[in-house]
Amino acid sequence: MVRHFAAAPQSGSTTHRMSDSLKILPKLASPRDLDPLSLLELEQLAEEIRETLCNLVAARSAHFASNLGVVELCLALHTTFDFARDRLIWDTGHQIYPHKLVTGRYDEFPTIRTKGGLMGYPNPTESEYDLFVTGHAGASVSTALGLASGDRLMREEEDRWTVAVVGDGAFPSGPIYEALNNAKRDGRRLLVVLNDNQMSICPRVGGVADYFDRLRMNPVYTGLKEEVAKVLSHVPLLGDPTERLLAQVKEAAKAGLHGGMLFEEFGMRYVGPIDGHNLRLTRKYLRMLKASDGPVLLHVVTEKGHGFRPAAEDPVTFHAPPVFERSEGRVVAMKKSSSRTYTHTASEAIHAALGRDERVSVITAAMCQGNKLERVRNDFPERLFDVGICEAHAVAFAAGQAKAGMRPIVDIYSTFLQRAFDHIFQEVALQNLPVTFTLDRGGLAGPDGPTHHGVFDLSYLRVFPNMTVLAPGDAADLTAMLDWALTHDGPAAIRYPKSAETFVEGPREPITLGKAEVLRDGPDGAILCGGALLGECLQAADRLRTEEGLSLTVVNARFIKPLDSETILPILSEAPFVVTVEEAALAGGFGSAVLEAAADAGVNTSHVRRLGIPDQYIEHGEREELLADLGLDAAGVARTCREANTAHASAVDANADF
Amino acid sequence: MVRHFAAAPQSGSTTHRMSDSLKILPKLASPRDLDPLSLLELEQLAEEIRETLCNLVAARSAHFASNLGVVELCLALHTTFDFARDRLIWDTGHQIYPHKLVTGRYDEFPTIRTKGGLMGYPNPTESEYDLFVTGHAGASVSTALGLASGDRLMREEEDRWTVAVVGDGAFPSGPIYEALNNAKRDGRRLLVVLNDNQMSICPRVGGVADYFDRLRMNPVYTGLKEEVAKVLSHVPLLGDPTERLLAQVKEAAKAGLHGGMLFEEFGMRYVGPIDGHNLRLTRKYLRMLKASDGPVLLHVVTEKGHGFRPAAEDPVTFHAPPVFERSEGRVVAMKKSSSRTYTHTASEAIHAALGRDERVSVITAAMCQGNKLERVRNDFPERLFDVGICEAHAVAFAAGQAKAGMRPIVDIYSTFLQRAFDHIFQEVALQNLPVTFTLDRGGLAGPDGPTHHGVFDLSYLRVFPNMTVLAPGDAADLTAMLDWALTHDGPAAIRYPKSAETFVEGPREPITLGKAEVLRDGPDGAILCGGALLGECLQAADRLRTEEGLSLTVVNARFIKPLDSETILPILSEAPFVVTVEEAALAGGFGSAVLEAAADAGVNTSHVRRLGIPDQYIEHGEREELLADLGLDAAGVARTCREANTAHASAVDANADF
Repeated sequence: MVRHFAAAPQSGSTTHRMSDSLKILPKLASPRDLDPLSLLELEQLAEEIRETLCNLVAARSAHFASNLGVVELCLALHTTFDFARDRLIWDTGHQIYPHKLVTGRYDEFPTIRTKGGLMGYPNPTESEYDLFVTGHAGASVSTALGLASGDRLMREEEDRWTVAVVGDGAFPSGPIYEALNNAKRDGRRLLVVLNDNQMSICPRVGGVADYFDRLRMNPVYTGLKEEVAKVLSHVPLLGDPTERLLAQVKEAAKAGLHGGMLFEEFGMRYVGPIDGHNLRLTRKYLRMLKASDGPVLLHVVTEKGHGFRPAAEDPVTFHAPPVFERSEGRVVAMKKSSSRTYTHTASEAIHAALGRDERVSVITAAMCQGNKLERVRNDFPERLFDVGICEAHAVAFAAGQAKAGMRPIVDIYSTFLQRAFDHIFQEVALQNLPVTFTLDRGGLAGPDGPTHHGVFDLSYLRVFPNMTVLAPGDAADLTAMLDWALTHDGPAAIRYPKSAETFVEGPREPITLGKAEVLRDGPDGAILCGGALLGECLQAADRLRTEEGLSLTVVNARFIKPLDSETILPILSEAPFVVTVEEAALAGGFGSAVLEAAADAGVNTSHVRRLGIPDQYIEHGEREELLADLGLDAAGVARTCREANTAHASAVDANADF
Repeated sequence: MVRHFAAAPQSGSTTHRMSDSLKILPKLASPRDLDPLSLLELEQLAEEIRETLCNLVAARSAHFASNLGVVELCLALHTTFDFARDRLIWDTGHQIYPHKLVTGRYDEFPTIRTKGGLMGYPNPTESEYDLFVTGHAGASVSTALGLASGDRLMREEEDRWTVAVVGDGAFPSGPIYEALNNAKRDGRRLLVVLNDNQMSICPRVGGVADYFDRLRMNPVYTGLKEEVAKVLSHVPLLGDPTERLLAQVKEAAKAGLHGGMLFEEFGMRYVGPIDGHNLRLTRKYLRMLKASDGPVLLHVVTEKGHGFRPAAEDPVTFHAPPVFERSEGRVVAMKKSSSRTYTHTASEAIHAALGRDERVSVITAAMCQGNKLERVRNDFPERLFDVGICEAHAVAFAAGQAKAGMRPIVDIYSTFLQRAFDHIFQEVALQNLPVTFTLDRGGLAGPDGPTHHGVFDLSYLRVFPNMTVLAPGDAADLTAMLDWALTHDGPAAIRYPKSAETFVEGPREPITLGKAEVLRDGPDGAILCGGALLGECLQAADRLRTEEGLSLTVVNARFIKPLDSETILPILSEAPFVVTVEEAALAGGFGSAVLEAAADAGVNTSHVRRLGIPDQYIEHGEREELLADLGLDAAGVARTCREANTAHASAVDANADF
């Protein structure tokens, strides 16, 4: 059986850094240093890589189980191909760690996911062996085909191979099929490795998952297959129907045995499944395929968390686990974060809404864990829909439910919802259907970096007529906004940050369509805040009161669209200076909406300063570090206010002199 | 053979309106009026529908061949199901005409695609029988599943069916597979009708198209299938391998015969193919399926243009033909539009670029015809990539080519490029790859209406760091911009309208990164134009000079991003009033970019008025009508300038009084 893996070596027996015991890995300058290694040495290297991964997550939260699962596959690929010339793309690049370790980045490896350190995804600026930053799933077969096509047209060597490694979790994603459908034209040297570990981040779902299960259960694989083909050639041609018909029956039978009909129908050759932890076997198959023609798909079965039993047994928890201590290959203590986050707030509000109203459902795209929907799934399995990694379908599906009278919530990270842009437009906003979008990770996502920051949402969502766009000032707002949105007769999007919950003190206004909330009222200037940096804004205002004696107005905008012009325009007219604050792109975001409202009303905005994400991709790092760098923490907001106040004072002085 | 259609009745022998000869169609108030009709009467009705379609296109350009192809299918559906209760969604709704005719809209039918008249797509505001406006392909299986799920959860009747009719041209589109993958959970009453006419708008491409061809060629269908199953049950179990193995061989053979493995692997039952012009047969199959369980896919083969020989023989030309005259079932004269459009300019510039530089390629998503790329395809077949309706793949594929050193052009309508939002972000802009996007139909697309207007592009494209966004002021700009973009080391998007070419007179500046062009220089006010309404702006300025003696500055912005602040800010400071003009959404568009630049420089904008597309979906109508309604023609721009000038004058007077 394919799943009958050799007993995996259990890594590490102590918790201290084990690099002293690593013999091979620290000396690798490039994948070509792998060439002289024997199979035994490569297996030793696999163990050293696992040891290094375990040491990393003992110090810092990082992607883990998926990396443990691809160690042998990674070594097999790098010892079969030369990716200085051939092309390698890791779809959903969080399983890139072994690849980074064998492509000359062992020394910098401990810096991964820290500011200024290695990125947790492939990164072309780090290494020629990284071709694309791939944080979103499902595009790699397309980019691989483009590379293959480009290489051919640019008169490069015809025998250069392009390899895309795609997890089975990415196969619910539509663009994979768009690429498979186009594979024939440019795929003569295309190899797609289906890395089948039976998971996305959550256990996977859907018809294709069942199909992969059937393929894995198929006892007729590799060696056996030829034997069966031989037998079939002896099936006698019976008299009754035409010979041609039975010949076709035999062809069909052979294809059926072959198992990979789905891929074959798309024009891909299918090979497998094989055990992806059997290094010898995996290399043998790769060599064989390299000597043949593509496009071909190699089905490799791996185990997420392989080689570290606790991770293999609970790959969901160990996808990106909290820091933990281990002993004798067991986890002895996990340092779970104690603080509650906006994700908790949202999931509890969602749970309450489903309990309150039978029309409410929630749709997630393989993010039950990330969105903390486990309790919702347990208590309301009928109304929790995990559709897999396919945000476009998720949104159109929600539109259908809404049309039938439901009140669906689409609960997806801000950055991943980008994949459904057109479906938000056509299926939801244009039809004015009551779908509520909860966008987690709105703003800077921290160590995951630019593919995971959700900074474009305010800009792109407010362009759609009918769409209401909300940004809670604190966690209490978030709960109230979800409740409000579920009673609103049209689409609404609520975006909130990846951060610990914050709460604004004092009595609060209820949520009313298009109404902002004035939390401080002062004559010396105004801060207009579009979202959960509100706490920072209030701190800044308090600091300026104490330190400079300035009394500032602070507004919690709540509605990015429709904007509360009634509240905001008089402030713009009267305040000596105005600072808008948002954890979102300045191009077309909240500050821009304020400028638009002002211009439309003929109100001057030359005294408005906008704080937000500038026109550049923000690298990875702790969210707080990144916010501070961008002047979006309390100190930064205070600094901008101080500068604006000084500029205003000079202008007043200049006028007085005049 | 499936393609052996009964000889089709050739419609109409004269060109005058034939409604006098229609006996059944004019009397239909609802689909239930179809119930008493005999098969013969329904076939007569089919002829009347075709006659009505022919009469329509004799008067006005409209979608044609696809509608001729679904007449019998539409009648079969409406006589098998009751879509007042069951659900029907037409994917890519331009084949909605017969459906409109049998759902009580015969009288209004001649108004279709005119302002205030029927929409050329399904429209829920017209009829309870239209559920979703579906101008973009590929979402209907998702929305159908959502409807089915919602109906079940809302405690509606369990036996209500949901039917999605999907053209084979939509099957390159990834979201179809996302939906199929999720069909099992909610699809017990889901029927997907694959309307296989071997076309999208252009002849279709890719592995799935080949697969459909194989399915159609399969001689083992319908009746024959059972016979073969019987034969198979007599295949003797030979001795050598185990019985179990051969039993499996037989299962596989049966599945192979069945033909629809691709769909079966996704968890859908596959039935067909059947002749979709055989009304009796199609109804029989629909009735049979209605009595069984879903999810099921019925493969129906139809002929695009069926029943009108010229359309059937050239379905590309007759997809949405120009107005034509016919006689004796033949076309005697086609009234082709004489004016050259921006599409011509773009396709010629693309052709020239491919001729000049071997690194240049062009990628289209089933729009060779719409984008007028036929000559490019003929002369450079190696570098023209028609990937089918799958914009996400198109963009990621281009990114791969660019990474390999190519200079790909992605040539897609503005509204359809929305489907690739996330791939523009991750695969192109984040990686800073030199992909050039040519966005046709940027602005109002006219009679196709809100799903086809491309009004969000300026807003959503300028949020991406690294992206350059260009809007030509005239056709000469477009050519020069394409040439410029192909030498620029990063992504660039050029958007231009669906309109006749316009040319600005006089000497012109070359295209320089981030430089605007000042075409008129006057002290009394300024018009800043972001795109091809430049001609209207110049006319408005000329009119105001003649009529009011005002001398206005007129700027051709050219670069929406980066904006030419150096040119624009001094104008903002000095001009008594400024009007920004764009054929794009006001939320986050060009005018908004101007306001941002001004605020960042501390420049007042209370005298700026922004003209563009307001926060509402614009209905269908001739582009010129729609522009006039929105004040975006020369008269409207002049009117706004006049008002702004008056407001300025009053303000000056008020100051003087004071």
